Amino acid sequence: MDGLHPGLEDISVAETRLSSIDGEAGELLIGGVPVEELAANATYEETVFLLLNDRLPTVEELKAFRSALASHRAIGEETRAVLRRAANEEKPPMDALRMGLSTASLGVEDETTQTAVRRVIAVVPTIVSTYWRYREDNDPIAPRSDLRHAENYLYMMTGDEPTQAAVRGLETYLNTVVDHGLNASTFTARVVVSAESDVVSAATAAVGTLKGPLHGGAPGPVLEMLEEVFETGGPEAYVRAKLDAGERLMGFGHRVYRVRDPRAEVLSTAAEQFYDAGGDAEFFAATKTFEDVATDLLAEHKPQRRLETNVEFYTAVLLAGVGVPKELFTTTFAVARVGGWMAHALEQLDDNKLVRPRSRYTGRSDRRWKPIDDR
Amino acid sequence: MDGLHPGLEDISVAETRLSSIDGEAGELLIGGVPVEELAANATYEETVFLLLNDRLPTVEELKAFRSALASHRAIGEETRAVLRRAANEEKPPMDALRMGLSTASLGVEDETTQTAVRRVIAVVPTIVSTYWRYREDNDPIAPRSDLRHAENYLYMMTGDEPTQAAVRGLETYLNTVVDHGLNASTFTARVVVSAESDVVSAATAAVGTLKGPLHGGAPGPVLEMLEEVFETGGPEAYVRAKLDAGERLMGFGHRVYRVRDPRAEVLSTAAEQFYDAGGDAEFFAATKTFEDVATDLLAEHKPQRRLETNVEFYTAVLLAGVGVPKELFTTTFAVARVGGWMAHALEQLDDNKLVRPRSRYTGRSDRRWKPIDDR
Repeated sequence: MDGLHPGLEDISVAETRLSSIDGEAGELLIGGVPVEELAANATYEETVFLLLNDRLPTVEELKAFRSALASHRAIGEETRAVLRRAANEEKPPMDALRMGLSTASLGVEDETTQTAVRRVIAVVPTIVSTYWRYREDNDPIAPRSDLRHAENYLYMMTGDEPTQAAVRGLETYLNTVVDHGLNASTFTARVVVSAESDVVSAATAAVGTLKGPLHGGAPGPVLEMLEEVFETGGPEAYVRAKLDAGERLMGFGHRVYRVRDPRAEVLSTAAEQFYDAGGDAEFFAATKTFEDVATDLLAEHKPQRRLETNVEFYTAVLLAGVGVPKELFTTTFAVARVGGWMAHALEQLDDNKLVRPRSRYTGRSDRRWKPIDDR
Repeated sequence: MDGLHPGLEDISVAETRLSSIDGEAGELLIGGVPVEELAANATYEETVFLLLNDRLPTVEELKAFRSALASHRAIGEETRAVLRRAANEEKPPMDALRMGLSTASLGVEDETTQTAVRRVIAVVPTIVSTYWRYREDNDPIAPRSDLRHAENYLYMMTGDEPTQAAVRGLETYLNTVVDHGLNASTFTARVVVSAESDVVSAATAAVGTLKGPLHGGAPGPVLEMLEEVFETGGPEAYVRAKLDAGERLMGFGHRVYRVRDPRAEVLSTAAEQFYDAGGDAEFFAATKTFEDVATDLLAEHKPQRRLETNVEFYTAVLLAGVGVPKELFTTTFAVARVGGWMAHALEQLDDNKLVRPRSRYTGRSDRRWKPIDDR
């Protein structure tokens, strides 16, 4: 195949039944179900079951899957020591997650890939919240197996059982972003297992990619932007200043979707429901005003391009509402996406081929070895 | 681009000046220098300097680079605790390396990417030998900054200064396999940093890929095969039995090279020199006999295909000679290849584009959400 394909954006590298993105139509299927139907209705456990098994679970299956996941939430003492040190040194949360996940096989007997997949998914919230508890000078809170996945994650951060509105809001978020084609982190996970490596290695590698600001880094800065806008008062002045300076407005636009990213719609609705049920109504109203003002000004500024709030904008608004600190937005993205990573890893292993692309050599061809004294 | 490219073997994803593989001619350039000139002459530090700087160092530059690398060899106490636990549980060495490397930023102040690159390269031998010391129920040995990279690695495994023949043998190995185009682990490292993530994450991810038996796993089994052959006596009977059973003979053939892999030649010569200088001559003679017998029988069996010993065959013979336990062959591959990973990571960051391939959806499109009681 001629040409150089550094972003691989025009190259299909895998068949998948896990998600389908139609950027022209603004449609996203997760496990075959339209995201707007799945996200607000399913528990995270149901969504992951759907990805792993290609169908929604029955009552009995869901019960079994929930307790299987819940039984793998604990982390070992060396992992805790690593997270405590990472927190003391204020290492970035995604670094802490990489460290925690890479050591997650300590204390574990040999296990099947299916069990390892469940452990990896189950343990990510524990790692993130343990790190955060240390970071806030608190003792970590042990996971509770009687709580749902999302519920337990919020519980481990505070020690209080979260409201059902908060759990529902978080579950909707987790379901919405659980999978999205061959994004860079998911592709990383597939490349790792393409060598027939294991799923802990795959998830650790994917965390490393998701850490990169070009991939997973934007919802935190969106919230910081909103906070700045609200402090300084007028959203109009803020947006005009950004556009006049030729800067990008965070939380708007997506490279894949030509029309509105359907996930933004789902998260916007979820945020509205959450804040209606008792969140900070003033914050949410200010957010809506900012969205309206910014969308109008962007349309004025670039009439040929339709720029609307993207998934990161309402991720920030929703996660802030349900009680996730903005420092943990990207790690909470990982809490969700690890379900997709693991489903992709299994799909890759099921019909595997080692990924080994070509490079084009641009270096010297006439260099010879020279002893150091002759250089 | 039409079609599905699961292995990407026909797709160029990057330009590189780091290595050039001509599989038809059997030629490999490392940093522009033919591998057969570089490998047996350079120290590992010189080779890594060449990759990072696109030229061989002067005496002064090499001195500075050696001490920079040597200053980053230490690992922290949490990393040691993780390695001790991994060793106690007999976790695979590559898992231990993944854990150790992912925690290698603990105890380290914010540092530049250039410094992090040096630390990552410097710390891999310490992680591997610390794990191995624990595995053998010994205390780890602190690195010594007055020893060369390869010398210090062997020293940390035993506490004895290695012979210069052993150091030379190991350096030749490290130089020979330091880089080899966009193999799966190197590509993994590039995908991770393509999101503008960091080099510790990139190296950790690459270790995960290299762990896979389709990538880094063969030299250990080659040595086990040789040991089995020597125990059972006749190489001819062993090879005939394998071929009659339709099994692959380990240590022969390579998917990229049509003629002999030039690295096999370099390592074969290095092994010969090492064993001539005082290694186990009987073992080496038996190895040569096995190679001759197997090559002849393979030619008889598949006259249309030229199968010769590959890089893994003489890796096993050489590493066993210089004193690397066979359990550490793949981690020692990582000790070498991390130089290539880091050079590729910098090259990627220098002219970056997020790697985000496409997938082809093969799942359902008619599935709707159904409440659990209706399923």
